[in-house]
Amino acid sequence: MTPQPAPRTATPEEPLRVAVLGARGRMGSAACTAVEEAPDLELVAALGRGDDLTAVTEAGAEIAIDLTVPSATAENVRWLVEHGIHAVVGTTGWTEETLGALREQLAAADGIGVLIAPNFAIGAVLAMRFAEVAARYYDSAEIIEMHHPNKLDAPSGTARHTAAAIARGRAAAGLGPVPDATEKDPDGARGAVVDGIHVHAVRQQGLVAHEVVQFGGVGEQFVLRHDSFDRVSFMPGVLLGVREVAAHPGLTVGLDGYMDLG
Amino acid sequence: MTPQPAPRTATPEEPLRVAVLGARGRMGSAACTAVEEAPDLELVAALGRGDDLTAVTEAGAEIAIDLTVPSATAENVRWLVEHGIHAVVGTTGWTEETLGALREQLAAADGIGVLIAPNFAIGAVLAMRFAEVAARYYDSAEIIEMHHPNKLDAPSGTARHTAAAIARGRAAAGLGPVPDATEKDPDGARGAVVDGIHVHAVRQQGLVAHEVVQFGGVGEQFVLRHDSFDRVSFMPGVLLGVREVAAHPGLTVGLDGYMDLG
Amino acid sequence: MTPQPAPRTATPEEPLRVAVLGARGRMGSAACTAVEEAPDLELVAALGRGDDLTAVTEAGAEIAIDLTVPSATAENVRWLVEHGIHAVVGTTGWTEETLGALREQLAAADGIGVLIAPNFAIGAVLAMRFAEVAARYYDSAEIIEMHHPNKLDAPSGTARHTAAAIARGRAAAGLGPVPDATEKDPDGARGAVVDGIHVHAVRQQGLVAHEVVQFGGVGEQFVLRHDSFDRVSFMPGVLLGVREVAAHPGLTVGLDGYMDLG
Amino acid sequence: MTPQPAPRTATPEEPLRVAVLGARGRMGSAACTAVEEAPDLELVAALGRGDDLTAVTEAGAEIAIDLTVPSATAENVRWLVEHGIHAVVGTTGWTEETLGALREQLAAADGIGVLIAPNFAIGAVLAMRFAEVAARYYDSAEIIEMHHPNKLDAPSGTARHTAAAIARGRAAAGLGPVPDATEKDPDGARGAVVDGIHVHAVRQQGLVAHEVVQFGGVGEQFVLRHDSFDRVSFMPGVLLGVREVAAHPGLTVGLDGYMDLG
Repeated sequence: MTPQPAPRTATPEEPLRVAVLGARGRMGSAACTAVEEAPDLELVAALGRGDDLTAVTEAGAEIAIDLTVPSATAENVRWLVEHGIHAVVGTTGWTEETLGALREQLAAADGIGVLIAPNFAIGAVLAMRFAEVAARYYDSAEIIEMHHPNKLDAPSGTARHTAAAIARGRAAAGLGPVPDATEKDPDGARGAVVDGIHVHAVRQQGLVAHEVVQFGGVGEQFVLRHDSFDRVSFMPGVLLGVREVAAHPGLTVGLDGYMDLG
Repeated sequence: MTPQPAPRTATPEEPLRVAVLGARGRMGSAACTAVEEAPDLELVAALGRGDDLTAVTEAGAEIAIDLTVPSATAENVRWLVEHGIHAVVGTTGWTEETLGALREQLAAADGIGVLIAPNFAIGAVLAMRFAEVAARYYDSAEIIEMHHPNKLDAPSGTARHTAAAIARGRAAAGLGPVPDATEKDPDGARGAVVDGIHVHAVRQQGLVAHEVVQFGGVGEQFVLRHDSFDRVSFMPGVLLGVREVAAHPGLTVGLDGYMDLG
Repeated sequence: MTPQPAPRTATPEEPLRVAVLGARGRMGSAACTAVEEAPDLELVAALGRGDDLTAVTEAGAEIAIDLTVPSATAENVRWLVEHGIHAVVGTTGWTEETLGALREQLAAADGIGVLIAPNFAIGAVLAMRFAEVAARYYDSAEIIEMHHPNKLDAPSGTARHTAAAIARGRAAAGLGPVPDATEKDPDGARGAVVDGIHVHAVRQQGLVAHEVVQFGGVGEQFVLRHDSFDRVSFMPGVLLGVREVAAHPGLTVGLDGYMDLG
Repeated sequence: MTPQPAPRTATPEEPLRVAVLGARGRMGSAACTAVEEAPDLELVAALGRGDDLTAVTEAGAEIAIDLTVPSATAENVRWLVEHGIHAVVGTTGWTEETLGALREQLAAADGIGVLIAPNFAIGAVLAMRFAEVAARYYDSAEIIEMHHPNKLDAPSGTARHTAAAIARGRAAAGLGPVPDATEKDPDGARGAVVDGIHVHAVRQQGLVAHEVVQFGGVGEQFVLRHDSFDRVSFMPGVLLGVREVAAHPGLTVGLDGYMDLG
C-alpha cells in the first residue's frame, strides 16, 4: 500500500497539491479556477475525459476533486484511494453497493479520507440542518424552491432532502401532521407532499437555485432562505472539502460532516 | 323618487352620516369601530340580522355599509337605493342577474352611487393592478398565496383574480406561455395552473392573508407582495368607499374604480 | 430547607401546578390564558401588584412565572426559591449583583431551577443561534430589524444581541471586517455599526417585531428571518420554560439553555 | 436637413439597422450581443473610442445606442440628430444646458427621436412608478437598497429617485410626515432621510443591485422589490428604447415615457 500523507495545514509556501478530474466540465473548470486562486492550494493536474489517471500521481497530487460523471466516479475514487490520494467528490450516481465497496477499501487504507457531497453549497447545507432544528418548535413547516425554467424535474433534490430533515425534526419533537383544513383544491395549489411536508416549485426566468423554508406558530413566523445566484457559490464548499479531507480519514457523506454546526 | 343628497366633502363639523348593516358580524363590528373613530364620519345606525331597515332612514343616514350575507344583500341594496341612500357593499353573492337589476334601478335613481367590492384590502387591489402592468414586461410570472391553516379552499379568490390580471397583461403584450421545461413532477410541486399562470398555496399557522407575485426576466426579478396581518386592514378600503361613493353615481364594481392608479 | 419536588413529566391527570406573578399586565394575562389552555398545566394562582406571595404556596404551586417589574422580580424570585418553587422569569432588570446572590442561594437549594430569559420568542432565540453558526461561513453579514412606529429606541435589543453573536462567529472563524467600499454616505444610509456589523432599523405602521439577518458570499445569499405578529408568540417559549425548569436545577440565563439546538 | 426615416415596425426580413457607440465598454458590448440576438434588429456598426462617427451613416444605421462617456455623449447625439439618426442614450452626464440645446435641435429636426434614460432596468422603472401610486394609500413608507460591497456611494441614485417619487405621492394625497416615535438612536440605525423617507443601504458580497420598498398601514404591508442579478437585465430596456424611439419624435427623458404604465 502506498504511504499516506499526514494531515497538514497548507500554507502559501507549501500549498496543498490538488488535481481536478472532469476539469473541462462547467463545475470542473470553475473548480480549477477556484483552486488556482486560493493561496494555500496549487493546481497540479487537470484531467478531462479520456486522460490517464497516472497524471495525478505523476504530478504529486495529495488530493483529487472528482467532478466527472456517474459512470466514471466510483472507479476513479477506487483508483485514487489505492494510490494514497484523498478525494473530494461532487459527482452523483453512488449506490449503496459502490459506497459499501469504498468503505471496505478505506478501512484498509490507513488515513485516507473521501468526502462525497451531493451539494457543495454551504448555504443549502446550513438551511437543511437549521430546518431540522427549527422544525421541533413550530406547528407548520412548508418549502418553496425556485429555479430557472430549464430545470427538468420538480421538486429539487435539495427540497426533498430538506423535507426529510423537517420530518425528522418533527418526529423527534413528537409533532403530528401539519395543520391544514383544505377541503377544496381542484387544481393542486397545495403542491407536492414529501414526507408529510408541502413543497412548492417555482420556475422563473432569471433565477438560478433558491430555497425558502417557512415555519409558523401562533402569532409568529420563522424563515430560512438560501439563494445561489451563480455556480461559483459551490466553490467555497469544494475548497472547504479539499482543506479538511485529510483530517477526516474514512468515508464522509455530506459536507456537513466537515462543518462546525453546533 | 326620494331626493338624493348632493356629493359633499365631510368635515368634523358636518360628518357623513353612516349606517352599518350586518353590524354584529366580525367585519361589521370592525366597520362600526372604524366609522366611529373617523373624525369626518358619524355612525348613526348599526343593524343586525332581523332589524328593520327603516332604522336607516329614521337615523338620517346618507350612506350605508352592507356587510351582511349573500341571501340578504341584493334586497338590502334595492331598498337603500329606493330610499336615496348610497351603498358600500362588501358582501359576496351577487350574480349577473342581481347586478343587472341594480344597474337598471340606478339608471333611474339620479345621483345615487353603489360600490360593490369583493376585496376591500387596498394592497390587494394595488397588487392586482400592478401585476397586470408588470406582466407585459417579463417572461415569467408566478403567484404564491399564503393563509392561515383553517382556510378551506385553495387557491384564494384573490390569487385567481391576480392570475387572470396577469394573463390579460401578457395577452396585451403578445406574450406566449411562460417558459417551463418541467418533464418530471410526480407529486404536483408546480402547483395549480390558473389562466396559464402557476399558483401555489401555502397554509401556515400564524399567518392571516398574504400574496406574493413574482416576475422574472433574464438577469432580473420583480416582486409584488401584500400582507394582511389583521382584518382591520380592510377598513381603510371601506372608509375610502364611504367617502367617495356619493361622488360616483351608478354602479361601480371593484374598489379600484375609486382609486387613482395612474 | 423546604423539600423540593422531583422533576416530573406532567400529564392531563396530574398537571403541573403553576402560579403567575404580574398576572394583570399584558404579558402576565397572556401567560394566564396560555397556562389555562395547556392540558398538562394548571393555573393555581394569579397574583397582581400588592397581592401576598403566600397565595403561591397556599395554592400548592410547583412553578411560578414572574412577569412583574424590575423593582420586584429579584425579591420575588428569592422568596420562591426559599419556598422550594421553581421560577420562570421574563422580567428585565437583573444585575450582576442580583444574579450572583441568586446563584448562591440556588447552590444551597438542592434541585430548584430558575430560568431568566430576556426573550421568550423561540424564533428570536433560533435566529440568534443560527446567525452565530452561519457567520463563520460568509464574507458579509448585515441585520435589518423592523418594528411598529411607536418603538422609542433603535436598534432593538434583539438586533444588538444578534450582532454580537455574528461577531463571535466571525471571530471564531478568523474573519476580518466585512467588505465595504463605501466612500460617500452623507446621510448615514449604511446605518448603525454594532460590534462591526451594520444594523438597520425600519419603523412601519402595521408591523410588530421582525428581524432579518442576511449573509453573503460570492454568488450566494443566506437569510434568517423571524416575524412576531402578536405577543402571543412569546407564550410557547414561556410554556417550554415551565415544562423544563424542574429538570434544570440552578440558574439558567437564556431560553436557549433549555432548547436542543444541536 | 437630412430626411428622416418614417417610424416603422421592424421584421426579421427588414430588421431595424442599429449602431452601438461605446461598443467596447461592458454595457456597450452587452448591447451589441443583445442587438445581434434580436431577430428584428441588425447590428450594422459597433464603434469604440476614437472611431469616426461617419461609420454610422456609412453603415446605413437608422438608430444609434450611445453608451459612451459623459464627456462625449452630448456631442455624439448632436451629430446623430444632425444626420437624421434616432438615438437611445444610457450615458450619464447630461446637464440642463446640454438637454436644452438638444431640445432646440430636435424641434427643427422633424421626426427624429432621442431617448435619454438614466436607468434601463424595466423593473426599477416599474418600482418607482408603482411606489408613487402606492404611497398615496399608506401611513408608512421606507426603502432598503442592497448592492455589492464595491459600490462607493450610499444610498443609490435609484433609491434617491424612489424616495422623491414616494414624497410626491404622499404630497398628492395630503399625507404628513411618516410616523416615527424614535427618541434614542445613538448609532444611526434609522438610516438616511431623503425627502422625508428613511433609506437604508445594505452592502453584501454576492449581491448586484436590489431595491425593496415597504409600505405599511394598520394591519397590513405592501412591498415592491426589484432584483438585478446581472447587467444583462438592462438589455430589455435598451431594446425597448430602440424599437420605440422612432415613434416618439423629440426628446424623452426616462424609459417610462415609452412604457404603458396605466
